Amino acid sequence: MVYITNKCKIVNDPVYGFISIPGDFIYDIIEHPWFQRLRNIHQLGLAYYVYPGAVHSRFQHSLGSLHLLSLAIETLRSKYIDISPEEEEAASLAILLHDLGHGAFSHALEGSIIRGVTHEEITLMLMRLLNKEFPGRLDLAIDIFTDSYHRKFFHGLISGQIDMDRMDYLRRDSFFTGVIEGSVGSDRIIRMLNVVDDSLVIEEKGIYSIEKLLIARRLMYWQVYMHKTVLSAESIMEKMVNRARELSLQGTDIFFTPALGFLVKNNISPADVNGKGGFSPEEIAKNFVMVDDTDILMSAKYWINAPDKTLSVLASRLLKRDLLAVEMQNSPFDAQKVAEKKELAEKRLGIDSQYLDYFVFTDEVYNRIYSPEIPDIKILSKNGTVESVSSVSDMFDHDSLSRKQTKYFMCYPKECR
Amino acid sequence: MVYITNKCKIVNDPVYGFISIPGDFIYDIIEHPWFQRLRNIHQLGLAYYVYPGAVHSRFQHSLGSLHLLSLAIETLRSKYIDISPEEEEAASLAILLHDLGHGAFSHALEGSIIRGVTHEEITLMLMRLLNKEFPGRLDLAIDIFTDSYHRKFFHGLISGQIDMDRMDYLRRDSFFTGVIEGSVGSDRIIRMLNVVDDSLVIEEKGIYSIEKLLIARRLMYWQVYMHKTVLSAESIMEKMVNRARELSLQGTDIFFTPALGFLVKNNISPADVNGKGGFSPEEIAKNFVMVDDTDILMSAKYWINAPDKTLSVLASRLLKRDLLAVEMQNSPFDAQKVAEKKELAEKRLGIDSQYLDYFVFTDEVYNRIYSPEIPDIKILSKNGTVESVSSVSDMFDHDSLSRKQTKYFMCYPKECR
Amino acid sequence: MVYITNKCKIVNDPVYGFISIPGDFIYDIIEHPWFQRLRNIHQLGLAYYVYPGAVHSRFQHSLGSLHLLSLAIETLRSKYIDISPEEEEAASLAILLHDLGHGAFSHALEGSIIRGVTHEEITLMLMRLLNKEFPGRLDLAIDIFTDSYHRKFFHGLISGQIDMDRMDYLRRDSFFTGVIEGSVGSDRIIRMLNVVDDSLVIEEKGIYSIEKLLIARRLMYWQVYMHKTVLSAESIMEKMVNRARELSLQGTDIFFTPALGFLVKNNISPADVNGKGGFSPEEIAKNFVMVDDTDILMSAKYWINAPDKTLSVLASRLLKRDLLAVEMQNSPFDAQKVAEKKELAEKRLGIDSQYLDYFVFTDEVYNRIYSPEIPDIKILSKNGTVESVSSVSDMFDHDSLSRKQTKYFMCYPKECR
Amino acid sequence: MVYITNKCKIVNDPVYGFISIPGDFIYDIIEHPWFQRLRNIHQLGLAYYVYPGAVHSRFQHSLGSLHLLSLAIETLRSKYIDISPEEEEAASLAILLHDLGHGAFSHALEGSIIRGVTHEEITLMLMRLLNKEFPGRLDLAIDIFTDSYHRKFFHGLISGQIDMDRMDYLRRDSFFTGVIEGSVGSDRIIRMLNVVDDSLVIEEKGIYSIEKLLIARRLMYWQVYMHKTVLSAESIMEKMVNRARELSLQGTDIFFTPALGFLVKNNISPADVNGKGGFSPEEIAKNFVMVDDTDILMSAKYWINAPDKTLSVLASRLLKRDLLAVEMQNSPFDAQKVAEKKELAEKRLGIDSQYLDYFVFTDEVYNRIYSPEIPDIKILSKNGTVESVSSVSDMFDHDSLSRKQTKYFMCYPKECR
Repeated sequence: MVYITNKCKIVNDPVYGFISIPGDFIYDIIEHPWFQRLRNIHQLGLAYYVYPGAVHSRFQHSLGSLHLLSLAIETLRSKYIDISPEEEEAASLAILLHDLGHGAFSHALEGSIIRGVTHEEITLMLMRLLNKEFPGRLDLAIDIFTDSYHRKFFHGLISGQIDMDRMDYLRRDSFFTGVIEGSVGSDRIIRMLNVVDDSLVIEEKGIYSIEKLLIARRLMYWQVYMHKTVLSAESIMEKMVNRARELSLQGTDIFFTPALGFLVKNNISPADVNGKGGFSPEEIAKNFVMVDDTDILMSAKYWINAPDKTLSVLASRLLKRDLLAVEMQNSPFDAQKVAEKKELAEKRLGIDSQYLDYFVFTDEVYNRIYSPEIPDIKILSKNGTVESVSSVSDMFDHDSLSRKQTKYFMCYPKECR
Repeated sequence: MVYITNKCKIVNDPVYGFISIPGDFIYDIIEHPWFQRLRNIHQLGLAYYVYPGAVHSRFQHSLGSLHLLSLAIETLRSKYIDISPEEEEAASLAILLHDLGHGAFSHALEGSIIRGVTHEEITLMLMRLLNKEFPGRLDLAIDIFTDSYHRKFFHGLISGQIDMDRMDYLRRDSFFTGVIEGSVGSDRIIRMLNVVDDSLVIEEKGIYSIEKLLIARRLMYWQVYMHKTVLSAESIMEKMVNRARELSLQGTDIFFTPALGFLVKNNISPADVNGKGGFSPEEIAKNFVMVDDTDILMSAKYWINAPDKTLSVLASRLLKRDLLAVEMQNSPFDAQKVAEKKELAEKRLGIDSQYLDYFVFTDEVYNRIYSPEIPDIKILSKNGTVESVSSVSDMFDHDSLSRKQTKYFMCYPKECR
Repeated sequence: MVYITNKCKIVNDPVYGFISIPGDFIYDIIEHPWFQRLRNIHQLGLAYYVYPGAVHSRFQHSLGSLHLLSLAIETLRSKYIDISPEEEEAASLAILLHDLGHGAFSHALEGSIIRGVTHEEITLMLMRLLNKEFPGRLDLAIDIFTDSYHRKFFHGLISGQIDMDRMDYLRRDSFFTGVIEGSVGSDRIIRMLNVVDDSLVIEEKGIYSIEKLLIARRLMYWQVYMHKTVLSAESIMEKMVNRARELSLQGTDIFFTPALGFLVKNNISPADVNGKGGFSPEEIAKNFVMVDDTDILMSAKYWINAPDKTLSVLASRLLKRDLLAVEMQNSPFDAQKVAEKKELAEKRLGIDSQYLDYFVFTDEVYNRIYSPEIPDIKILSKNGTVESVSSVSDMFDHDSLSRKQTKYFMCYPKECR
Repeated sequence: MVYITNKCKIVNDPVYGFISIPGDFIYDIIEHPWFQRLRNIHQLGLAYYVYPGAVHSRFQHSLGSLHLLSLAIETLRSKYIDISPEEEEAASLAILLHDLGHGAFSHALEGSIIRGVTHEEITLMLMRLLNKEFPGRLDLAIDIFTDSYHRKFFHGLISGQIDMDRMDYLRRDSFFTGVIEGSVGSDRIIRMLNVVDDSLVIEEKGIYSIEKLLIARRLMYWQVYMHKTVLSAESIMEKMVNRARELSLQGTDIFFTPALGFLVKNNISPADVNGKGGFSPEEIAKNFVMVDDTDILMSAKYWINAPDKTLSVLASRLLKRDLLAVEMQNSPFDAQKVAEKKELAEKRLGIDSQYLDYFVFTDEVYNRIYSPEIPDIKILSKNGTVESVSSVSDMFDHDSLSRKQTKYFMCYPKECR
């Protein structure tokens, strides 16, 4: 007698080879339209304008994170850490859904479509709604996601200095951009995981891999995520959405794809998302899950012909990849220099002074190798003591790790060079 | 004194590492909005519904093919084949632009948006228009593309049994799907290239790599391109577009994104594309280059709420990835069996009999390892004679290579299993 | 409380990443000097004379095969095939030790050091001796190895058309030679394994991967294993060993490293290996396990200065990689042509006619895509029937698969070109 | 007419795919027995005792370094740095031959076989002898190797903080060990190379790749090169050779393979190598080039049966991989602790007190991320200024880069745990 399982439980992944789906409920969640929607959201916003291969989606990243979590659980169990099937499912759900609240173009428009709300807050809103649809089945997953479960290491696997999210995105983004130096030995790090006093720790001999992870992350940060041309492209897109919103709120009749229009024109607020505003989470969710990258690109195609010159030019530049010039440096730009560029833009391109801010502007971005507000990476020495990575590593001290590195950039039309 | 070239001439590619852009004019063509548009067209249609990594674009594939062509020219020159800078630029343009005429979702909707016209014909139309924009600069490229240049091997590099297009797509599709068995030793094959009597040949010791290429292509064909779930998804998309067109031509007011609407509602014909219809190539091009995958996905979002039930259900199933069941076999389906499925669909889902063909249907796909209508792969033996691969290989004979392999599939709603 | 296992159970492998050692006894066997010895035996004989990367050892290959077996067992268990811990250990031992009987330079000198005995026979001899050392612990492993265990699929995993040995060597040899086309989707094939009526079968959708495996094997065969320069190098080495043996048996005092000398000078026979000769298996084993590649290379260094000109020239040519010219063709060489080369060798190099056979000779090699004497690859269709791959594949028929492909080569000194 | 080059000029390499040999003279040098000898020298000493894949040879590494040099020259020429064909050949020879002076097991026995002489000194001796064999053809290569050529950047490509040697060994060692975190973006770094005032510089945007390189090197250092088990194995091998030398110099009749015996028994000195001793460079070279890893392993097989217990035990432990236990820490070991281990060894294993130092010993190893004595890595900013990496990087300062990191290890028999 031959048994063949009904549901396809194996997914091909170019990064890991094959990903097994652990269980039928997880599979059903993956099939859910809300999760399928992530297929049409670029993991790296407009990074594909610079790295043509970086067209991978949040869908893949979520599956990849799930895969790493399965490996982590397998490792921990082999070290006699007790993990129940319920905990495994809950942690799997939490990592699988952790990016469900990402909107069009991921971070690039985060806060631009729904103002003042992070993607994590929307994730939580959507998880709670799914928990109604599958009554109570996501209770524990939500606890882990919000760090209210007492076995803290589960949250650490989902969100922390060395979580499965980060491990996957570094490997995956490195793979798809072709920036191979960003790759991370996720296999080795995961095999070094352990749990002491309900906290995630790394065994001592993994210290060099951790150092490598931190440096790889830094490299990806400046070389990919904050690449100046990517910043220029994403700034244009953000300005474009802002201009459309502004015009619309001023009463101008501006085209929006329907669900995007709902979110923008109604100025959905944090209160709404948290269930204390004029719109219910159900109403917001219904529209939110219909918005993905295609809404932005499609709206931009309409906006090329908008009567408003500013909106039209921004949309056209975005779609034709006719980006603004960009300079990047370690200190803020001189106000005088910005003023000169504006003057040039006014003179050479005839941009009305009230719209100059859309085309000549400065901004800043920053990075820390790791975030001091998140619990430290803990290293488990062979004699059983647990210490902070910054006290164990002879390479990094706490200062160099948590120092905030800020860069400043200025964008302006190429014609003003 | 340090010279740094002004134009970025190197592109990161996850498959090959780095791709150098050979020359400023090639670079300008890549920057052209018509070429940039390829960023938003999936290389493999809806294959990403089965292989989540297969989100790569025609843009990358075109750059990759260009890269392989550069390697091929380098190899041929090292074997004392004379290739002038003009020929190099022309061949580079021809391979770079060979897919410019692909529409939304590549092959999946080829012939559905503009009926009766292949993507090659549209490519040619667009190349001719570019040749007006850059007066005469594409003359030779067009000759090579249409095989009217007397040194036939240039066309062979662009389009033939072992062209750079195929070499790139097999490697790239294998890379992004994760189906590693489809990978192809493009480096080795390219190093085996030579030219005899103006024809492309493969040196004898490359014979096993060629056999491997043919088998890899066959594997990719059935495992990816014609994967039954991919066929099911793409059939739904095609039926959806057809239904929208049909309703529109019947006079129903159906939403289309603007440029897509132009092409569909005007029923653009082969005559138009060839400059002998009611619409000029300029008019067609202007709209064609504004249509990409986002137009289809966005229109589908509107169509979910269309009054026409058929259109609405097709759009909904597509977007939610709620696909039809599909069976595949080596012989045609029994008419009786199809009729039974239709009956079930009518009974269980209440589909009106006149619309059953949208939900229960059969179709066929076929493959040949290589195409008998295209010039054979020629093998150059060590003693200088040139023979057909089918007479040299002790593995394949001409019959097995050119035999048409047909498979039949039937789709129907899962509820009718 | 933190548990850290005492024995290192994870090995880094460049092909698979990490290999876990399943259990303490398996670990002890790996640590055994007889197994450690495999570190100094090149997996691919002298292929590294052509492919510099092909310096990998039988040690790695044995570990790699073990790893694939673990994956296969995991897959089969997930399909509800019952496999006991004892069976798992026995199968693991059988695959781990399957190449224990390989001597210096693997296949290249198989039959030259101990005449008339295959490496499998020596493996069996050594396994039986180990079974005395660890009383009875290898009983079941030996049954599986000799195909005397009733659940035949275990033997099929160790030795058959799609065994783990072949799967590993194709991937590994491809990896280390850099002939990437030889790579095999071992992950996919293993996931398609199943067992019907105690026989190993491949599920239907794995058919293209199987076709690919067969072609990849064929490619590796002719491009690597039987590469003409490799054949030339290995022929010289074999002739050299034969000449040394001959001289020694004639009574000439020829240097041999000690254990190698024992095997060669005593003319160890099949009867000895099978325990029916003048030397006991224990005595043979004691010497056999001390011989590896270094004995041959070291003896050759001595032989460079041997008074016998033939031996001296062969050793010198081998060590300096001053190989014989080699021609390869599909039909036997004309006797006349060989005679001419001999005449030239005599004239130009002054080789005495009685020694000409050492420098001018022909030989043949052959390959079958698969071996008709071994049970067929069986394909399990979706409806549960089991058929031969040759009746299911529309690419291969039984004839093309089992056809013996013979090639002939002739070697002679380069000076006789 | 078809031209096929006579000499095979392309080599398959698993790391880079294909390596082209630039020119016939380079090819002849590769075919030279002195260079072929490198095939039998492990690049990483006994690292393959821990990482079974690390069996790659100095031969491959030398070819790989040559390949990277070719890429570097191509890059520099594309930036209008004038490099003549003579300079290209000389630099190619210098990098190709840079490791010619490595003896058996590379660094592991450096200074043990020929005392007080580095491999670079022997390389120089051998290059000078080759320069006699090919009169004057290596003049410029020797100048570049010894840094006496006025265009300093050539030496920088051969030997410096970011030379092609280091770039290849990090990538290659990472590839063969499977420690993927050690991999280095050699392609990217090479494309960032430039020359200012005859010095090698890195363009500014390569700064993150340089940081990554430094950290990867550090990781490989502690995780592979100085892995404690590797240190234990190599210490045993070194002690074994030392013991054999000692016995031999005391007049005991100890077996050595012939050429190894010449070097050890004659106590070849730095003066000899520099042509000012009792033996001529020709005599030394003649023997030196006959010694490779096989001499050590073969001698060890003889030594197992040596009457001297110490030598016999060391040889046996080495060959059976029955290594000493090893502890590693950041501070020197307490003398008291070492004394206790010795006492245990005497008591439990009956080792005579005068030989205890062979089995219980401490040693230290150290690493610097980069070497302060070698010219700094220089970064070329976009405005044309050149600065030290330590002043440009906001991650590393000069102190952290050049700080000497020392680790201490102690070995002792496992029975004394």
